[in-house]
Amino acid sequence: MTQSIVYRGRGIRTVAVIGCGLIGAMWAAYFLHRGLNVRAWDPAQDGEQRLKALVNEGLKDLRMLGGELGKQGELTWCNSWAEAIVEADYVQENAPEKIALKQELLARIDAGLPADVVIGSSTSSFPASALQAQCASPQRVIVAHPFNPPHLVPLVELVGGERGAPAAIDAAYSFFEGIGKTPVRVAREAVGHLANRLNAALWREAVNIVAEGIASVEDVDRAVRHGPGLRWAIDGPHMLFHLGGGEGGLRAYIEHLGPAQEARWASLGTPRLDEETKRKLIEGMDREVAGRSMEELKTRRDRLLIGLLRLMAEDEASEGRQ
Amino acid sequence: MTQSIVYRGRGIRTVAVIGCGLIGAMWAAYFLHRGLNVRAWDPAQDGEQRLKALVNEGLKDLRMLGGELGKQGELTWCNSWAEAIVEADYVQENAPEKIALKQELLARIDAGLPADVVIGSSTSSFPASALQAQCASPQRVIVAHPFNPPHLVPLVELVGGERGAPAAIDAAYSFFEGIGKTPVRVAREAVGHLANRLNAALWREAVNIVAEGIASVEDVDRAVRHGPGLRWAIDGPHMLFHLGGGEGGLRAYIEHLGPAQEARWASLGTPRLDEETKRKLIEGMDREVAGRSMEELKTRRDRLLIGLLRLMAEDEASEGRQ
Repeated sequence: MTQSIVYRGRGIRTVAVIGCGLIGAMWAAYFLHRGLNVRAWDPAQDGEQRLKALVNEGLKDLRMLGGELGKQGELTWCNSWAEAIVEADYVQENAPEKIALKQELLARIDAGLPADVVIGSSTSSFPASALQAQCASPQRVIVAHPFNPPHLVPLVELVGGERGAPAAIDAAYSFFEGIGKTPVRVAREAVGHLANRLNAALWREAVNIVAEGIASVEDVDRAVRHGPGLRWAIDGPHMLFHLGGGEGGLRAYIEHLGPAQEARWASLGTPRLDEETKRKLIEGMDREVAGRSMEELKTRRDRLLIGLLRLMAEDEASEGRQ
Repeated sequence: MTQSIVYRGRGIRTVAVIGCGLIGAMWAAYFLHRGLNVRAWDPAQDGEQRLKALVNEGLKDLRMLGGELGKQGELTWCNSWAEAIVEADYVQENAPEKIALKQELLARIDAGLPADVVIGSSTSSFPASALQAQCASPQRVIVAHPFNPPHLVPLVELVGGERGAPAAIDAAYSFFEGIGKTPVRVAREAVGHLANRLNAALWREAVNIVAEGIASVEDVDRAVRHGPGLRWAIDGPHMLFHLGGGEGGLRAYIEHLGPAQEARWASLGTPRLDEETKRKLIEGMDREVAGRSMEELKTRRDRLLIGLLRLMAEDEASEGRQ
């Protein structure tokens, strides 16, 4: 029976955004920018003003990025989650990272929606199976996890776990792809999904390098920004090694340098965030920040993200391939 | 006595490039582009033609990048390393990664040079102390390791180890900074220096994700390119977490989410490059490559690198800060 449901995907017109902190608000901005109507709810007292202010900021960035599809969608503030999901073709849940709260909220939303509406959660810490636990229709409850800042970074990780329907993942994939995001299927539940596992792996060694006195916090960041970070943004980690293998590519790399790489892996550190390491990290970050405000740093980040994304999009368009 | 040597740094006019494989040739192209004279030697039979062809390719990229300082330098092919180091203000050694070969070559070069000339090695695998072992003046023999492709990626890792003179590192730092590279001091010898440790840490988890069936090779690369890779290129790994800590920055992140991050670290994998994993990696890369030739992939990489570097340079110039 559930196998035959045709979930709403590419034709989605109205999205419910449940929970409007920074993540929810930036989702709302993105959906509106791409011409979708948004019905938003958050329990905070000043929720509506806060959302509208954040959405305006997000839309300012997005207009610099381009990619509008016709006219901007309409934002409707709702006084309850129940009101927000009326007419919703898709739900993006962004409640605080508290499992009991999310489970109850998702179960109630699930009970109030037609069977063909997919519910995606922005959770960074919970597996799909935990979110589905109390839902009557667990097959349409999935993880749809963005990467900060969500209105600009294209990646959306989709995880259904064992109970999520492949058809629900497919529908979400079509939806996100259709609105210019980069959906990626995560085939198995794992702590940190995919991107945050990689993020954790990189940061662990970055912390180790500081803890061991190999280099300073600011030099690690400078080295990455002016070194491998450029390559990761262009090629990703696997392609980098393919291009490092000469004419034989990744196969030749593994055959000739696999053992050396395994030895390098064995030499990597397993630091702890103890008091001494925390102190080194915070002192180093103070030097790197060099008096710049959080606002300045974020403005720089978003300005460069927009520049990078435009560059990549132009390159893809001129090449005619992803 | 050695403490008082003033090494040649910012005023360097002539560089000896010893060993002209791809790395050496791309170093030569960069030096020439920045107006330095290059004296090059390689023992290969067709060394001169090969070098000149590669240098021309490199210079084509570099003219797109910009940053010329006056007119291009002069390239002189030499018939021996001894001839190449005559008049050299700095030596960049790029011999094959064989320690006995490098040790003997470096010892002879060292014996043939004035005391104030720094010798930098492009080695990716050997510590400075191993390179210095047979040199009469180990204090001026250092690692000056680029990241592929060396003519475009700005990073140069400088490692002196315990015997390298801080003044020699300082001179190399001034030299590379003066010609538009991004030198970074590596304070302690470590396998993979700095960037390749981070590269290994990221790839280890990328391999683990494929080995464990969490996601495919091509989805890992897509996720990084459209997700965290963009942030690493802009912010580096430490700044990313500073911006993830809200108004309290890295300190708040570590205080609130440090334990969660340590739990995520504990969940990361330690894969082996066994037959099954090799097969998955190579099959996935075949799908990702999708018939594109190595030349096509490298052309795309270099075109995007040039675009990214121009964007970053313009942003820095307009902000007036690094």
